[in-house]
Amino acid sequence: MSPRHNAVDAERTRAAIVEGAVKRASIDGLEGLTIGRLASELGLSKAGIVGPFGSKEALQLAVLRRGAELFREAVWDPVAALPAGRARLMAACLRWMDYLGSCPLPGGCLITTAMVEWDARPGAVRDAVARIQRRWLDALSAEADVAIRAGELSPALNPEQLAFEINGIAMSLNMSIQLFGDASALTRARDAIERLLAAPA
Amino acid sequence: MSPRHNAVDAERTRAAIVEGAVKRASIDGLEGLTIGRLASELGLSKAGIVGPFGSKEALQLAVLRRGAELFREAVWDPVAALPAGRARLMAACLRWMDYLGSCPLPGGCLITTAMVEWDARPGAVRDAVARIQRRWLDALSAEADVAIRAGELSPALNPEQLAFEINGIAMSLNMSIQLFGDASALTRARDAIERLLAAPA
Repeated sequence: MSPRHNAVDAERTRAAIVEGAVKRASIDGLEGLTIGRLASELGLSKAGIVGPFGSKEALQLAVLRRGAELFREAVWDPVAALPAGRARLMAACLRWMDYLGSCPLPGGCLITTAMVEWDARPGAVRDAVARIQRRWLDALSAEADVAIRAGELSPALNPEQLAFEINGIAMSLNMSIQLFGDASALTRARDAIERLLAAPA
Repeated sequence: MSPRHNAVDAERTRAAIVEGAVKRASIDGLEGLTIGRLASELGLSKAGIVGPFGSKEALQLAVLRRGAELFREAVWDPVAALPAGRARLMAACLRWMDYLGSCPLPGGCLITTAMVEWDARPGAVRDAVARIQRRWLDALSAEADVAIRAGELSPALNPEQLAFEINGIAMSLNMSIQLFGDASALTRARDAIERLLAAPA
């Protein structure tokens, strides 16, 4: 086999491991990822799982990056071309709620799981989780700021406060779906978002 | 030593294990509780840790019960004597936010950690977490229902919707404190609660 083929194969294997690990981590968390279980799920040896990454931590970081990418593809990319402001903020938030309401990952939002799992443990994984979440909350704040300045949202609102509350609605939705299997929570979350981002009277 | 003394000592040891495990689990989760680590933290043998409970799962359930008890003592007991309605709901919610803002447990709210850790894993621990959370949300809904019927909250509000949104504010606060160490989040959470539970104009 040519070196080129080897590199393509290695990349395919790496990607397959990350896909399997993203699904598994949405259920068991990133620390809960066990190499043995992944190996048996993917039909690889334990060395074959860790090898392409170098360490379990590097695998966890790759899984986190992929989780953030899945989120961005589902939530942000479809609305990115809209002009900044209330309409785009609303569209992104409703897509976020839909993403949580019928999450493509078996254990629900990987980032939510990772945030709670890692918030009290120092290290590179925690730093990466915090960075991903910070970036998203900052994007929501920036969007709310544009909308408030344009008069599309009440001038009494504060952008960071809005991002804080939107995030809460998302977390409550994720909990209702994952812990209680409560399908009505999606309507509750959409109602809460629409009231929070109502146009000024 | 008399059998009575033995029983008292056994109960003290059991309580000390639970207290240590509650603190540890708030950081590492209930599944992350390792018997070896607890044993070395508490100066006991591994058998001495599991023995009083019979199994790791029984220890996890005892830890969960104690976590719920700590919450109730801090949040509900101090307001329980108030008459049901908006004032008691507001007081309980603000106490909840204070509890999360300066949580007595090193890793923040144990129940929040357990909800996310267990939401995708079947079993007795998950069932207990869901029962604890359900009971609390039902208590909030019942209180909101009284307040709405008494005209203390807008008749346009829905009790379950309020409980859903209050829970979201609490989860967002817990995340902001634990992941970002953001002390300003307590003010954000209090503002959000006060706006959500505003008396009708």
